Amino acid sequence: MASNRQFRLAARPTGLPTESDFTLTETSVPAPAPGQVLVRSRYLSVDPYMRGRMSEAKSYAAPMQVGDVVMGAGVGEVVQSQHPGFAAGDFVYGSLGWQEYALAPGESLRKVDPGAAPLSAYLSVLGSTGLTAYFGLLDLTSPQPGETVVVSGAAGAVGMIVGQIAKLKGCRAIGIAGTDAKVEYLVQELGFDGAFNYKTEHDYVAKLEELCPNGADVYFDNVGGAIADAVMAVLNKGARVSVCGQISQYNNTAPEMGPRLLPVILTKQIRVQGFMIGGYASRFEEGRRELAAWVREGKLKYRDDVVEGFEHLPRTFIGMLQGANTGKALVKV
Amino acid sequence: MASNRQFRLAARPTGLPTESDFTLTETSVPAPAPGQVLVRSRYLSVDPYMRGRMSEAKSYAAPMQVGDVVMGAGVGEVVQSQHPGFAAGDFVYGSLGWQEYALAPGESLRKVDPGAAPLSAYLSVLGSTGLTAYFGLLDLTSPQPGETVVVSGAAGAVGMIVGQIAKLKGCRAIGIAGTDAKVEYLVQELGFDGAFNYKTEHDYVAKLEELCPNGADVYFDNVGGAIADAVMAVLNKGARVSVCGQISQYNNTAPEMGPRLLPVILTKQIRVQGFMIGGYASRFEEGRRELAAWVREGKLKYRDDVVEGFEHLPRTFIGMLQGANTGKALVKV
Repeated sequence: MASNRQFRLAARPTGLPTESDFTLTETSVPAPAPGQVLVRSRYLSVDPYMRGRMSEAKSYAAPMQVGDVVMGAGVGEVVQSQHPGFAAGDFVYGSLGWQEYALAPGESLRKVDPGAAPLSAYLSVLGSTGLTAYFGLLDLTSPQPGETVVVSGAAGAVGMIVGQIAKLKGCRAIGIAGTDAKVEYLVQELGFDGAFNYKTEHDYVAKLEELCPNGADVYFDNVGGAIADAVMAVLNKGARVSVCGQISQYNNTAPEMGPRLLPVILTKQIRVQGFMIGGYASRFEEGRRELAAWVREGKLKYRDDVVEGFEHLPRTFIGMLQGANTGKALVKV
Repeated sequence: MASNRQFRLAARPTGLPTESDFTLTETSVPAPAPGQVLVRSRYLSVDPYMRGRMSEAKSYAAPMQVGDVVMGAGVGEVVQSQHPGFAAGDFVYGSLGWQEYALAPGESLRKVDPGAAPLSAYLSVLGSTGLTAYFGLLDLTSPQPGETVVVSGAAGAVGMIVGQIAKLKGCRAIGIAGTDAKVEYLVQELGFDGAFNYKTEHDYVAKLEELCPNGADVYFDNVGGAIADAVMAVLNKGARVSVCGQISQYNNTAPEMGPRLLPVILTKQIRVQGFMIGGYASRFEEGRRELAAWVREGKLKYRDDVVEGFEHLPRTFIGMLQGANTGKALVKV
């Protein structure tokens, strides 16, 4: 029988993960028990939130355990099914983990249509990434036509969709990203009204003031840290902040200090909301429908940054944490 | 004609204001022009927000100017009216300023009924103080029965009303205050479920964990700083934070640093809302009606900490900023 390669968590990372925090093991491909489905992974997702799950720190999502297969979403093809809802040859989305073959309860899988969109899109614009951008922006910040929306991590999977949705809603979209190529991509390809490279720009506030002559009304934060501090300084009275990620902080070995935010939140009467997309599960269909329509109509572009080869999962994950990707970081198995 | 004593801003305070930042001047009592009303001050309010108005720092409320009569709310008696809505002998609430007699446009005044409640109550439980507690708690945090509400500055004008409204809504109320007498007052007199003195307690988080065995669901913040940091640590997933004041920060001469809040806001999916009561003007009647009913029914206690003598305004204001008052700090003219 074919073998099943798996990446397991070898150690909880300290700071930025290294390849030695993961170990490649090999086992035989399992057979599904009643109710289970055997799925062969086609694309596996690497996402910032996974870094948090690798820590022991108290959180509201169960941490991964050392020795476990690394958890994560994927799309794949059903090889064998013991669940009435699935048959061999179906394509499915689910929490497959970093392995070539996954056994999953049928209830945890969702069929996807490879004819309607490339398989990888079900992990990006039509998956949690797109839904996170959609609900995190529209539901939590209610952007109004003419308002200015700033997004950090703007060339990342979520950020690039946030900026485009802001444009679709009649807003000005300003992005913050980490390379000149990303900045150019945002403005030239995706229609952002402005963007800057935080790695070469030293006075973020001055740059934001230049790009947001009327201040900013909405901030979609993927990164936190000094970038978030600067955006807070240019927010208008009554601004809304959607806190989706804090990637600048995930590899800290001690909590970082920064200027206090509550005085600014008070003076400007700002609303700040932290969120995780799981809370919107009951509305996923609504989000997927609108995202798919925008993609079909050519109004919403997406970009899947695909690395080929199962063995590159750890490296791709580590690179994503450092901003190596433009768009959704994925590994093609 | 009688003379009119006034306190003017002599200098913008640096750090904690001193009495020399104010100057007592004397002028003649003015006569109202058409549309104006001459009011004799009876009670004048000293409030934390006034400290912010004394600074030049950019804000969304116009700062006071050096040389101006200090701005602030008061209740008084109409002496002479050139406005059809008011007659001598009426009692009114308005922005009277720190002076014995104020000229005000009739439109800026609101009649109050000295028979329905003590005059001072219109500056406390039935005034902006009560409304701030009411809307800042109920509208922004939607406390549910059984939830735990933590309030800082709990023995201050707003805080003591917040805790009592939390109790009226079936919540556990936990207060943070600055003297043992205040703590005792909150628990013994006002029915708080617990409280502690932040000046003698050194491990705020441990104390909060003891007082909030199920964590906290709502935080009504009047103070900011290290106290807010500690409360953030015991908030539950989905908690709501109403940012009403930041009195620990008002006298800072440089922005204070603290542990970053956005990572906590994200992980716990917290909503933080800064607010000022002015935004609720269209709903003031609703709030006043319910507050007055609770007072009448004996369900809501309040305490006006009255200092007698116009000349004590600066001292009372400075003392309030240091926590000298229990309940609403007022000066009786």
